[in-house]
Amino acid sequence: MAFEDVVGRIAANLEHMKTFTATPGAGCTRLPFTKEARQAVEYLKIIMAEAGLEVKEDTAGNVFGTLQGTNPELPCVMMGSHYDSVINGGDYDGIAGVICAIEVARQLKERGVQLKRNFVVAGFCDEEGMRFGTGYFGSGAMLGKRDVHYCKRFRDTDGISIYEAMREYGLDPHRIEEAKWPEGSIGCFIEAHIEQGPVLDAGNIELGLVDCIVGIQRYMVTVNGRADHAGTTPMDMRMDAVEAATKVISKIPDWAREKADGTVATTGYIRTVPGGMNIVAEQCEFTVDVRSRNNDNINDIIRRISAALDRETEAIGGSYEMDNKLTITPVNLSQNMLSIMEDSCREHEYSYQYLPSGAGHDALEIGQVIPTVMLFVPSKEGRSHCPVEFTKYSDFAKASVVLLDLTETLLAE
Amino acid sequence: MAFEDVVGRIAANLEHMKTFTATPGAGCTRLPFTKEARQAVEYLKIIMAEAGLEVKEDTAGNVFGTLQGTNPELPCVMMGSHYDSVINGGDYDGIAGVICAIEVARQLKERGVQLKRNFVVAGFCDEEGMRFGTGYFGSGAMLGKRDVHYCKRFRDTDGISIYEAMREYGLDPHRIEEAKWPEGSIGCFIEAHIEQGPVLDAGNIELGLVDCIVGIQRYMVTVNGRADHAGTTPMDMRMDAVEAATKVISKIPDWAREKADGTVATTGYIRTVPGGMNIVAEQCEFTVDVRSRNNDNINDIIRRISAALDRETEAIGGSYEMDNKLTITPVNLSQNMLSIMEDSCREHEYSYQYLPSGAGHDALEIGQVIPTVMLFVPSKEGRSHCPVEFTKYSDFAKASVVLLDLTETLLAE
Repeated sequence: MAFEDVVGRIAANLEHMKTFTATPGAGCTRLPFTKEARQAVEYLKIIMAEAGLEVKEDTAGNVFGTLQGTNPELPCVMMGSHYDSVINGGDYDGIAGVICAIEVARQLKERGVQLKRNFVVAGFCDEEGMRFGTGYFGSGAMLGKRDVHYCKRFRDTDGISIYEAMREYGLDPHRIEEAKWPEGSIGCFIEAHIEQGPVLDAGNIELGLVDCIVGIQRYMVTVNGRADHAGTTPMDMRMDAVEAATKVISKIPDWAREKADGTVATTGYIRTVPGGMNIVAEQCEFTVDVRSRNNDNINDIIRRISAALDRETEAIGGSYEMDNKLTITPVNLSQNMLSIMEDSCREHEYSYQYLPSGAGHDALEIGQVIPTVMLFVPSKEGRSHCPVEFTKYSDFAKASVVLLDLTETLLAE
Repeated sequence: MAFEDVVGRIAANLEHMKTFTATPGAGCTRLPFTKEARQAVEYLKIIMAEAGLEVKEDTAGNVFGTLQGTNPELPCVMMGSHYDSVINGGDYDGIAGVICAIEVARQLKERGVQLKRNFVVAGFCDEEGMRFGTGYFGSGAMLGKRDVHYCKRFRDTDGISIYEAMREYGLDPHRIEEAKWPEGSIGCFIEAHIEQGPVLDAGNIELGLVDCIVGIQRYMVTVNGRADHAGTTPMDMRMDAVEAATKVISKIPDWAREKADGTVATTGYIRTVPGGMNIVAEQCEFTVDVRSRNNDNINDIIRRISAALDRETEAIGGSYEMDNKLTITPVNLSQNMLSIMEDSCREHEYSYQYLPSGAGHDALEIGQVIPTVMLFVPSKEGRSHCPVEFTKYSDFAKASVVLLDLTETLLAE
């Protein structure tokens, strides 16, 4: 199989996938349970079947293609990613991992490799959570974490619930629990994905071996002061919420840098109430998002933020609330699968780097219960979730070469 | 004249004025060129006439009441304030200064004092600028600073221009320039007003002798960074607009405190773009409002902000704009009139304090060209521009006692 043919096939598939968007000319918008999602799933079924896979769509909207092994009772090797996108997103986030997995299956089939266990390609539904404010819908259902109540609970901005959207799409939400795979039936999970960060591109590295998915803690902080006239209230008679809040926010990035191990901390949102230029703010809301491969580092930064808020709100005579929105502990990925991929990179003389994933993925959901690994390809300038998201097709092809080596080793075990 | 009678009359007038609001039960809403403004003006005309004043409404919507002196060619003594309010404002801001001035006129008349020069009570139209986003409309017209183009330029949130609103109200905007008073015809201007700040109330001081109206500089600052994924972008590869902005904002209050002369500095508004909790902010906008009696202090703080923005945006590799929205230099009020009022306070054993006005007033507009003074009465807890705004009627009566002394002295000169 010539490398150029692999590049060409991946390119053809991804180019075709680009047409399944609700926003042509403005990036990929492929929300779950929409016409575009249906088009993508039907196309995946066609190319999975062409590659020799047995195709099945489950009750959660996931699509699976299976290459039968000689002993299908053994835990399978599963590879894939998601086929949905954010609004005005990129053309590769998610779907490229599905296309690469199909390419691996095709080559396994073409080589006539005798498989001991099943190889399963997965195209997951609704990883992004963009439409219903959730996430990992399909991979969660595969693990038995979704039920009809969940489907009724979450609604999109038009007020349509997952339940209603599924029915409209042709799925029965009452059968969602049938999407669960039997305990022990999945031996390992492998996900190829664009990096969504700048590290590989900046270092001109061809592949990223992802050894962990970082932990995250997210908070909404509200600092309470008192509204006062900005002209007539002396400095020592104010309870300025902005002063207390910014004295904390301004220090957070340096606390993350101190850790010097890739720990990141971000305040992406600040809101002042009432927000008049001539009114001392009575309230300042801000978000904190801290991520690290080391959970102790996350806890330490949150502790420092809380101590600084104690100090600064006391100084103004105010108060604060710190509302936890998300806590995910770091997930370590499979050392065994990483070392097989490292050997493959060396053999093919691909440059590589170990790095953590700073974003969540289906692999984060699955990696909590099943041995999992991820392989990153470079994102140009680290851009993703936007129309300019770009990765060279040859980079995806290199990933598929390494994934094929990994799969052959695993299927022989 | 018994002091209790003065309190009672001021109370009766202000209580009646409270009924002229578009938001009964939710504070005073008396916007210019509305039914409520018309009701207030007609009521002022009645009580001015009762107090023995010759009443006139001008082409800008101001109302004047004149007590003739023996030599009406001499520059007059003018006293007053504005009759409009903000939306859901208080019952005293502005209008109390007009009512106190009418009380002074009434007592001058009742005492049968022989006046050398005219005493003029002024009720100005649209000081707040709430409806059309302007300010000092009536006092500006009196000084010849308003014309028909100005009236056509500004519109309210319903799209109605000052021009249209005036016509609807019964005024001819083409005659606005007739509102100008002849050069030299106003000898001095005196304005009583609630403090709108907490200083007198906190110190339990009865009257505030306002020796200056502070200068103001206002800026909208925009810090430009780059949007990045909050999870996948290492700290040293970010251009975090929030980091640069908050490292500046957090220092501004301390720079004002350092001046230790009443200088104040406020960031009341902050906005982050795009504002996602998991996105490094590409832009952070914030306002700066610096006020001081000493213009050098304002300039120095603005210089420090600009230097800090240079430093912090360079550190992230970003940029910034600093857009000047308002520059007003401090106005010193009349030392002569202040010392007359100080003598009066001593005589009546009223506690008093010299202080600057941190807010703008008609006196700010007028004080730029005519000797001007202000007298403050305490605002409970410094609250104003809100329904809970409160000043005791007896405090207004004390102000009117001091204003009467001042007026008698000035009219005899």
